[in-house]
Amino acid sequence: MLVYDLTNRGKKSKYEYLYQCLKEDILSGKLAEGEKMPSKRRLSEANGISIRTVMNAYEQLLMEGYLESRERSGYYVVSDFDSPLRYQKVEIKEASPEQDENWMVDFTANTTVYEKFPFSMWTKVMRQVLGDYNLHLMKRGEFLGSPELRYEIAKYLYHNRGMVVSPDCIVIGTGIEYLYSKLIGLLPANAVYAVENPGYRKIRLIYEDLGVKWTWTSMSKDGIHMGSLRKSGATVVHTSPEHHYPLGTVMTARRRQELLKWLEESADHYIIEDDYDCEFRYSGHAIPALYGLDASQRVIYMNTFSKTLSPGIRISYMVLPPKLLEQYVNSANFFSNTSSNLEQHTLAAFLRDGYFDRHLNRMRRYYLSQGEKLKNAIQMTPTIPAEEILGMETGTHILVKLKTKLSDKEIKLRARMKGINLCCLSEFCIGEKELYWHVLVLNYSGLEESHMLEVAGVLGEIFV
Amino acid sequence: MLVYDLTNRGKKSKYEYLYQCLKEDILSGKLAEGEKMPSKRRLSEANGISIRTVMNAYEQLLMEGYLESRERSGYYVVSDFDSPLRYQKVEIKEASPEQDENWMVDFTANTTVYEKFPFSMWTKVMRQVLGDYNLHLMKRGEFLGSPELRYEIAKYLYHNRGMVVSPDCIVIGTGIEYLYSKLIGLLPANAVYAVENPGYRKIRLIYEDLGVKWTWTSMSKDGIHMGSLRKSGATVVHTSPEHHYPLGTVMTARRRQELLKWLEESADHYIIEDDYDCEFRYSGHAIPALYGLDASQRVIYMNTFSKTLSPGIRISYMVLPPKLLEQYVNSANFFSNTSSNLEQHTLAAFLRDGYFDRHLNRMRRYYLSQGEKLKNAIQMTPTIPAEEILGMETGTHILVKLKTKLSDKEIKLRARMKGINLCCLSEFCIGEKELYWHVLVLNYSGLEESHMLEVAGVLGEIFV
Repeated sequence: MLVYDLTNRGKKSKYEYLYQCLKEDILSGKLAEGEKMPSKRRLSEANGISIRTVMNAYEQLLMEGYLESRERSGYYVVSDFDSPLRYQKVEIKEASPEQDENWMVDFTANTTVYEKFPFSMWTKVMRQVLGDYNLHLMKRGEFLGSPELRYEIAKYLYHNRGMVVSPDCIVIGTGIEYLYSKLIGLLPANAVYAVENPGYRKIRLIYEDLGVKWTWTSMSKDGIHMGSLRKSGATVVHTSPEHHYPLGTVMTARRRQELLKWLEESADHYIIEDDYDCEFRYSGHAIPALYGLDASQRVIYMNTFSKTLSPGIRISYMVLPPKLLEQYVNSANFFSNTSSNLEQHTLAAFLRDGYFDRHLNRMRRYYLSQGEKLKNAIQMTPTIPAEEILGMETGTHILVKLKTKLSDKEIKLRARMKGINLCCLSEFCIGEKELYWHVLVLNYSGLEESHMLEVAGVLGEIFV
Repeated sequence: MLVYDLTNRGKKSKYEYLYQCLKEDILSGKLAEGEKMPSKRRLSEANGISIRTVMNAYEQLLMEGYLESRERSGYYVVSDFDSPLRYQKVEIKEASPEQDENWMVDFTANTTVYEKFPFSMWTKVMRQVLGDYNLHLMKRGEFLGSPELRYEIAKYLYHNRGMVVSPDCIVIGTGIEYLYSKLIGLLPANAVYAVENPGYRKIRLIYEDLGVKWTWTSMSKDGIHMGSLRKSGATVVHTSPEHHYPLGTVMTARRRQELLKWLEESADHYIIEDDYDCEFRYSGHAIPALYGLDASQRVIYMNTFSKTLSPGIRISYMVLPPKLLEQYVNSANFFSNTSSNLEQHTLAAFLRDGYFDRHLNRMRRYYLSQGEKLKNAIQMTPTIPAEEILGMETGTHILVKLKTKLSDKEIKLRARMKGINLCCLSEFCIGEKELYWHVLVLNYSGLEESHMLEVAGVLGEIFV
């Protein structure tokens, strides 16, 4: 018999408490599917409550579908589920199921090797922050982000990117997408956004998601093709002058000047300088950011720690020119900053105490060596018809120019059949693909060193 | 003489390193404004480098404005700033400067008393999570949020809100604003959003920020006024049936049925059920959420931990009906979840191990006692012309109906002169204010217990 301790019911009414107990027993499987419930009278006697109380509870369970009433027989448990909760597993039909495949090697994963993250250092710093800031971490975070973190980022930008920016102009956000959604609200409503073509595909997706008008501009070997930009009718251009993705192009000083000239041609022109990956440069030296060269206050600088540290740390930032900053502060300051106080403070201390620099140096060495190993492995594999290997100077991928009659589609398909997920450069293009045919984009950040030759061997099998 | 240890320069060229050292010394003030720089020859000799190297560094500093060249004399330091970095403080003209005022008492701060946060428990759990999950915390977070957390929230909703939802349908986000921006992309593009009037002002601001069309619906004592909703032409309505803010109304069962009927009238109709503050109910019992009563899959449930735990913890969630969830997963799954892995896991364990329930019980007792003390203090202060005190059952504010000839504007102004920041109910209204004149909305969550009588005394001075 079902006996419940009704003295435990707190402020609940007897009916409510009984109802909840029964429901839990059904959900937990204690009362199994099809089981006959005790009669109202028996349950009322066993628990020292009125029949009316039991009836109310049964009625409620009936209404909610946990019981069913069978004529002239009584109440039965309905519970065709195994889960402790009544909900049913929701099956989502994913539009792009391929993401879940288990690849032997995935060259498309342009991600951080999270295993290389200096976790013990990070948690050491985090413990200090927990001790130092204590309850203050639980206050509403500052709208623009933690001042300590913004100060450290300003210092970092000064030392590493030749940028002299006030911490006041730095806006912390939980990701580039998030910052984009904020930024677009600050730019003219009729703006037309140009992406680089080929270029980082996510930017297009963000524009589409945000419902803004976008177009594209071709690339030349010096960076953005100015004629194409002008013809595109774009008023805002997204660019990575320091390291184009995926081409690896560094925009020349002359092209930067030309781009800044374009900027000055109209008060509606803006440049979004996405400095993603600028930290991973293995030769040559970094060219100062466009942001620092712009007098018109219409360059917005963006960067993220998700690549340099870990995608598990949701901290990105943008540097707004003062006039946009003012607009931002006044338009949206009822919003809260979405970044974790604790992680912001931890990152600030991590930057301040030099851990970040040390980690970057370590990762630079690691990625450089990974790239070289992959390059060597490809060169040592005669079956791969590699004409040229590009992109060793920066980033975490290389470009492999192929001499092959296979179409890019065939290459991908054959690779897939070997368990290899890869991208061709043409996939980063909108139209105009011909120029970029037969070039593999191989991200090596996540490859296992010991497997490079083996992987190259399998890759070679595609072409024989 | 300026001597630098060039062996420290890492991979930098000598010129680059020298340039950086000099720049730092200028920025730090070591090389002061107007100081004459050593000649190129002297600096080259002192540092064992070529004159050409020094010249390059000087040229760069000249170009960037850190040095100036005076004819026939040499180079001089330019640095009219005190800051360690060259940037200048950016002054933002804030549109609403009153936020910064120092109030004797602020009745408008509808915020959590962060001092009551169980910080030591939270950090204890967090340390366990750091140990248990370790490096896994550094992986890219799951798109919808941590499965562990979503499971715990599903359990919580079942036990506390009578909702039977699959964890699959729960979407974690870094705040209600963030979730709104995602949700709006899922609802019909031509949707018209209704806010409750009076109502929570932030919702309007969010709609405006997101650029969607919005309108309002009046309230009756039973909840949303159905005639007004129909007349408004809205297709999506935002409502807090469990606890209207600021009226404190609980929507009657009949009104819920009427609202669900309205929902069924068109496939374009949606309800956003904002369950904010539902946790703080001191009498009566919670009514099951609308989400659970809806068969049409067009109720979206929203809630946040920023009030129940702390505004420093950026975790909110929405429960999507399966068909909207599918749309969400397929439309935007290139985005990363913006919440911190660490905090999501910590919260999951915090819920699982009962700490959250215990904290809520503690806060319920605290807020209830705060509300009662404020009510008593007001009743014991004859100078306050209080006709009725409402809203004791739920939330963290009370409504004080006044019998006064002062206008709401005058009340606010006089209060301000006494150092009291308060809101009148009419401020939560769009048009139709007359109905809601002469009612104070007093948030008591942040009041100091020992000051209640004193505060009430000062409040009374307004009316004499």
